[in-house]
This record gives sequence, C-alpha cells and structure tokens, in this order.
Amino acid sequence: MSIKPNLILFFWVFSCLFSSLTLARFPSSAIRAELARRNSNKPYKAKYFTQILDHFNFNPKSYQTFQHRYLINDTYWGGPNKNSPIFVYTGNEGDIEWFAQNTGFMFDIAPDFEALLVFIEHRFYGKSIPFGGDKDVAYSNASTLGYLTSAQALADYATLVIDLKKNLTAVDAPVVVFGGSYGGMLASWFRLKYPHIAIGALASSAPILNFENITSPYSFNNIITRDFRSESENCYKVIKGSWEKIENIGKRSGGLELLRKSFGICKNYIDAGALEGWLQTAFVYTAMTDYPTPSNFLNPLPAYPVKQMCKAIDDPKTANDTFAKLYGAANVYYNYSGTATCFNLDESSDPHGLDMWGWQACTEMIMPTEGNNKESIFPESEWSYSDRAASCKDYFGVHPRPNWITTEFGGHDIYRVLKRYGSNMIFFNGLRDPWSGGGVLKNISNTIVAIVAEQGAHHVDLRFATKEDPKWLRDVRKMETNIISKWISQYYHDLELDF
Amino acid sequence: MSIKPNLILFFWVFSCLFSSLTLARFPSSAIRAELARRNSNKPYKAKYFTQILDHFNFNPKSYQTFQHRYLINDTYWGGPNKNSPIFVYTGNEGDIEWFAQNTGFMFDIAPDFEALLVFIEHRFYGKSIPFGGDKDVAYSNASTLGYLTSAQALADYATLVIDLKKNLTAVDAPVVVFGGSYGGMLASWFRLKYPHIAIGALASSAPILNFENITSPYSFNNIITRDFRSESENCYKVIKGSWEKIENIGKRSGGLELLRKSFGICKNYIDAGALEGWLQTAFVYTAMTDYPTPSNFLNPLPAYPVKQMCKAIDDPKTANDTFAKLYGAANVYYNYSGTATCFNLDESSDPHGLDMWGWQACTEMIMPTEGNNKESIFPESEWSYSDRAASCKDYFGVHPRPNWITTEFGGHDIYRVLKRYGSNMIFFNGLRDPWSGGGVLKNISNTIVAIVAEQGAHHVDLRFATKEDPKWLRDVRKMETNIISKWISQYYHDLELDF
Repeated sequence: MSIKPNLILFFWVFSCLFSSLTLARFPSSAIRAELARRNSNKPYKAKYFTQILDHFNFNPKSYQTFQHRYLINDTYWGGPNKNSPIFVYTGNEGDIEWFAQNTGFMFDIAPDFEALLVFIEHRFYGKSIPFGGDKDVAYSNASTLGYLTSAQALADYATLVIDLKKNLTAVDAPVVVFGGSYGGMLASWFRLKYPHIAIGALASSAPILNFENITSPYSFNNIITRDFRSESENCYKVIKGSWEKIENIGKRSGGLELLRKSFGICKNYIDAGALEGWLQTAFVYTAMTDYPTPSNFLNPLPAYPVKQMCKAIDDPKTANDTFAKLYGAANVYYNYSGTATCFNLDESSDPHGLDMWGWQACTEMIMPTEGNNKESIFPESEWSYSDRAASCKDYFGVHPRPNWITTEFGGHDIYRVLKRYGSNMIFFNGLRDPWSGGGVLKNISNTIVAIVAEQGAHHVDLRFATKEDPKWLRDVRKMETNIISKWISQYYHDLELDF
Repeated sequence: MSIKPNLILFFWVFSCLFSSLTLARFPSSAIRAELARRNSNKPYKAKYFTQILDHFNFNPKSYQTFQHRYLINDTYWGGPNKNSPIFVYTGNEGDIEWFAQNTGFMFDIAPDFEALLVFIEHRFYGKSIPFGGDKDVAYSNASTLGYLTSAQALADYATLVIDLKKNLTAVDAPVVVFGGSYGGMLASWFRLKYPHIAIGALASSAPILNFENITSPYSFNNIITRDFRSESENCYKVIKGSWEKIENIGKRSGGLELLRKSFGICKNYIDAGALEGWLQTAFVYTAMTDYPTPSNFLNPLPAYPVKQMCKAIDDPKTANDTFAKLYGAANVYYNYSGTATCFNLDESSDPHGLDMWGWQACTEMIMPTEGNNKESIFPESEWSYSDRAASCKDYFGVHPRPNWITTEFGGHDIYRVLKRYGSNMIFFNGLRDPWSGGGVLKNISNTIVAIVAEQGAHHVDLRFATKEDPKWLRDVRKMETNIISKWISQYYHDLELDF
C-alpha cells in the first residue's frame, strides 16, 4: 500500500517521516544497500517476543499473536546482580533499526551507566507485523489496521519489558525509557501510564500538546518561518514570494517546461502543485533537522542546513532569479552528495517503513499543524479537521477520534495537572524544531523538567555525540545524563530501604 | 446465563457479590419489590451517554455504541460558575443504583462541598449493556463479552466525565472519584491512569494487591478466621470442627436427612458440599459486612453480625450440638428478619445483576484468595490457578491473563513505585474485612495515604452515617473529608495561579 497524494498533505509533515520524494539518482535500492553496508557490524542483536494482538479485549481474535522485534545490546550492562539499569527506546513509526542508528545518545552513555540497551519496535512497523508478519494482510483494511494504536503499543512495551526482566532475572533493575518525536510521546506516556515499569522518561521533541486546540495550528509552520527568517529576511521573503510565482508560471503556456528546467526535474514532471510540495518538503525537513553537524537522518545534510539554504538563496550570483535561488536551496536538501543529475517528483520510496503513519494520522493522531497564517513562509491556508476526516474516510474507510489522545493521555492544562502528579520526566525541545510548538517548554515541577535549546532541532540530543558538537548541545546531554543519574541513585536508595 | 456451581467456588468470595443462595421466604421478586419501594423517591436521575464499544481499537466493530447509564444528583451542586466539585463514583460489577444506595457517604458530604454527584455504571452491568442493551446477546459468548474489561470501563468513565463537564460548561470543576471494593480498585486506577480527569481518589476496600503472589492466597480466609476467633476461641473451634462433622454425617445412611432437618433446609436439599458452601457464604459475607450498625447491603443484618453469630454458637443452651449452633449462626445471616421457615440451597438469584463478574474472574481478575491453611476456619485447601483456568475454559471458552492487571496497573513494590509518583489517593481498609489483606495498609507518601480501621469492614466508610456510628468510624469519615477538602483547596489555588 503506497501513500495516496491527497494524504501526503497531512502526512508528510510528521517528525520522522522520510520524504516520499527522493533523489532520482539515489533510489531506494541504493539506500537499502547503503544501510546494509552500514549495518553489517550492528551494535545490537535482533530478538523476537511473542506478543498478543489486543491487550484490552478478551474476544478470541484478541488472543492472536505476532512476533514483536526488539534490539538488544548487553555489551555495557553491569548485569542483574548489580541491578544495573535498562535503557529502553520506545520505538516509533518505522523500522526500529533506523531509530536505533539515530539514537546514538543511548550508546554513548551506556558505558558510564553500565546499561543494557533495548530498542523496541512499534507494532505494524519494521518486522513487527501482526497477522503472520504479512504486510499485505496487516495493512489491508481497517479490520486489521484497527490494532495499530498507541495504547496497544505501550501495552506491548510493558508486557515485553516485564517478561524480559524476568528472563534476565533482573526484576529489580531500574528501567529508563527514551524516545524522540512520536517515540518521545510514547516515552512520556509510558512513564505516565506505567510508572511501575519505568522509573523515568527522556522524551525528546515530543509534541504531546499538538492535539485539539492546545497548540495553535499555525505554530508548526510559524516556527519554520522563524527559522528561515532568523537567517535572513531576504531568504524568508524569497521563499514566501516564490509560491505565487511558481503558480503563475505554471499557468502560462510553456510554463511547466520552464519550471521543469529551472528545478532540474526529470522528464516525469507533472504540475506546479507537485513542485511546491517537493520544495515545501525540503524546507520542512531541513528546519526539523537543522543540526549543528553534518547528518544523515532523513537525507544527507551539511551542518546548519537552514543557513546553507539561505546562503544559496541570498547568493548575489543568482541576483533576482527566484527559481535559481530555490533550486540552490533544494539542492542542499535533495542533493548534498552532489550526485543527482535530475530530481524525480513522483517517486515514492519509504526505506524506513513509515507508511502506516497515515493510518495513525487518520485515527488518533489528529495533530493540527497544517495552518499557515499571513506571516507563514508557506501559502496562507487553514487547518481543516473536516478535510482530514474526509480523506481518512476515502482512503481507509475510518473515522478519526480527534479527542481520544487527550482523553487517554491528557494534555489540556498539563502544567496544572502534572505539577501535583508524577515525576521523573525530561522534555527536551529544540526551538528550531517546528514540533517544539507542541512540546513541554517549561518546568512542570522539580522532577518533571523541560530542557529547551534555542539552537536545537528535532531530537538533536539523542544523536551520537561528535567532536564538532557545540557547547550548548554538550551541556544539554550533560544535564540529561545528570538527571537520569539522579533518578537511578534515588531508585537504588529506595531499593536499599526496601520500601 | 446462570452461574455453574463449579464457578461459584472462586466466584462467591468477591466483595460485593450477592450470595447466589437466598432466603426461601425472601425470593428475588420480593427483593425487587422491596428495592422498588425504597427507590420510589430516588435521590438521583438516571441519564444515558452514547459510549463507544472499544476505545483501544479502530476496527469497524469498535465503533459500535451502547447506551451507558449514569445517575446524577445536582441538588447540592454549587454550579459551574463556582467551579464546584464533581464527585464521581466509578461503578463496579452490578447495578449502579445498588451501589449508589450503599454509598451514602457521598450524599452525606455533598452539601458541605456543594458537590455534583455522579454514579457511573460499569459496562455490561445494570442497564449499561452493549449490543443493543440485550443481555442475551451481550452475555452470549467470548466474542461479545470480550469487551467487558476494566481498562475499557475506565476509558468509558474518562470519556463520559469529559463530555459531561463540557455539557455542563464545567470544564474547570475538580473531579474526585470514589469507589468501594472493585469500584475502589477502579477509583484508584482511574486516578493513576487519568490524573488529568480526577484530582484525587478515595479507594475504599480496594484489594489492588490481591493479584499474582503479592498477597498470600491464605490471607482472605485467615482474616475471616481472625474475625471469628476475636469473638471467642470456642466460636472459631466450633466452626472449624463442623466441616468434618457435616461430611461424616452426610456419608451415613439417613445422614443427609438429618442435616436437612438440622439446618432447616427446604425439601430440595442435595448434598453435604452444598450445605458447606451455604454456610461458608454466610461466614464470608458476614465477616465482610461486619458493620457496627444494622445494615442491608447483601442481606439484612444486625450490628456486629460476627459477634451475633458467635453469640449463637457460644450459646450454652445448645451445649455440644454443633449443628444447632451453626444453625443459629446461619440464621443471623439468612434470617435476621425472622420470617424464613426453611432455607433453599439451590435457588440462584441475582437481584443486583452481578452475574458477569464470573467473566471478569475468568479473564483479568485472577485474585488468589481461596487458599486455606491449617489455621483457617474453613477446610484446608490450596489456591489453584490451573483449576481456575480449567473452569474458565469449560465455562466461557476463555484463557485467563493472570498477569495482565499488574502489567497494566502495577501492584508489585507499590510502596517503592508510588512513593515517588502520583498523589491524592486515600486507601481505606477495615481490618475486619477479608479483602483488607490485599489492600494498601501503609501510607505511601504524604499525599497517597492509608486509613486503616481495626474494627472496620468492607467499605464501611462509604455507608450512610447513622446516629449509632462509633467514634472511630466518624473519625475515619472526618479524615477522609478533610483530605478531600485539601485536594480541592489546592486545586483552586493552582487554578487561580493559572498554571
């Protein structure tokens, strides 16, 4: 099942979602080969756990099982006798190996904590596919996809962790959960719902407040706007002015061919809307992954890629040629390796297996982020729940439950609610990240804290440390490590007192 | 669907479960008439909410709805403008009207708090029956009963309360949840899982630790043993010695007829086992409802009914006639009104609609309470999970998930876990109550507190106050009221600060 274009509109903006449009010269088979090469010496073993299909129902169908994958690394673990900690990544909407590879922080700190590392895949992604592991069956309709929910995933994690600890005779080992983006939402919700299993949670770039009317639907795109504007007012203006130009040219006779040539699009170029979507994807993901060092999370990118894009746009050589400027910017995101000769707008590849986020965005993950107000760097538009609902009905035959997430996990008045409840949570947000608008940005209590990095992007703290990391990033990680260390010390203290 | 005798063994001991064996002269139709009389001037209105069938799944079947009943009393409510509190009873395994009538505490304190009272029925009980309200369909098999789970019930309560507050324009009104027995478990779990909806919970006689191996399987019956023994050693010895005597007589020629006559059993008497079960039911429920004032929760009873039973047993007039002594004790429970001429052992009536606890006890509510060690007042026996599982397979065709409750709600090491997590919970337990062994009996933190009454029985604190209430009971209720009052004050304080 591939993504229908009309779904992309509300689909492509989510966090870890790989662009459905990739380099013509860097097709998915090549990506897979590259991943295979990098993974030949993987720092974890894959294991499988027999998981129940439906935790919250006892009808005969609920007892069906599936093979649930998790990755484990015990290189650094101090073992059960020392009650050394277990660090668990609560997997998000894709292949767990990809998240493990982009969560170097856990590997970096494991030796000091003598921690066991466990990365648990999210049901319906990667190799954790119900219905016999057959995606054709599992993804076929609402009756099978119905079991793809966040609450079921959290119950999977709870069940797996309890069983794993028993098998390792490590029942008393403290568990800390980690997650970024949707995985960060899951980590924070896991601590909220399963405090008896996790002593604390590091929720990085977790937009748990991006539901209902808690966060403005303009917030997401306004942060992208601010990111580009912070580089130069001209950069912002050129991008903002480009959409009308593209549309106008597209309507002219021969205009589409002009656009095709201007942007180095391969022969299969279709229309102005697709070009705009392709450019917007580049701006959104570049803002999200505006990391201070070269990276390869979604696409290979230089350090500070927003700055690089604006540099291309502000380049005096291109004078007043908007398309040449945008082409330069697009090359930062789509062709940093410099090997592309043309771009393919309608190629749909999904190397990390993120497809089924579409289902989640049609059921419970109704996150209003697609509004663009007057200031937005993108064309003005309103978030429309009814449009979303209509697409979901068309595509999956399902009605969203837009209030479910706040019913189940809260979100409204979170500062008031959690000030007097719960403990041991870190919410990291980088303010360059468009998702930070839906994040927890203020300390809630002494033990539920917000770490905010003005220069940070989407879960940058969770990435492998590099020698080039700026001081603020090293400081963030140091703070996180110190807090986690305190949780564990306190736990050992309580364990000794034998509460 | 009526209860098979082999299920009664693990079924009848639960908290609010009415004996399946009732007075021959006080049949269920009479009970219903009596209830109807009492309810003619009910202090609440019944309303219905359209509830979704499955909150944790998005398949088409999950979208089915049912009419979910709740009772509401706004006589004392200060209204939305004052943000006056809402007191919610989280209904247990039976008709919600019955629980409302036996939770006078909420009515007693409502005027001082200017509280709105809401009693929410548990799905699959009373009039809150999925599948069109048709019990024949809803109770027919595991495919329909599968939706009867505690997590679904909690999600029902969450959904209903949020909607109710919106409709009342009382979004900021603080909600406190109350519950006794299984309803108390639900109240505490609701606070744990839905802190964004309830600011606090009074969980009365909630045996949340009676799962897996957290509490000894002998605990329940040992407390009953202690209750009777505390009245007199002779009382305990007579009861303890009676089982062998009944069995021995039952095996003799003419022995059953002798037993029938000795215990005033009507003509349909069957065997010694049924007689033992009938007597044990009386001892169990009398211990549970050993209230300091006359009551009519399960059966009409005098004040301190255990003392009354032992008085009958210790009566010098019956000398060494064990059966006459036991007959006297049985009359305290089964014939306090004095109108019965004979007892009917195999009549099965269920005036409060508690039948489907059998399903819950076969799926998630695996509470090992049926063990009897050497000291037990009942015949020595071992708790056997495999026996339970076999009965459940036979009767419902379902496999229990004995670890699910602790996976979902915790329980192991609760003092360590909740010492650093959560707030605003009161666990009341009366130590006369056999369920208190599975309760929280020590303070967990400053805000998660245990109130323990040595002389208390099953959720005695929740009953209507009477002039005869002893000082300790008045003190318990005062403490509870003061704590709840503090929660609400603190909430208002936070609300003013606009966190």
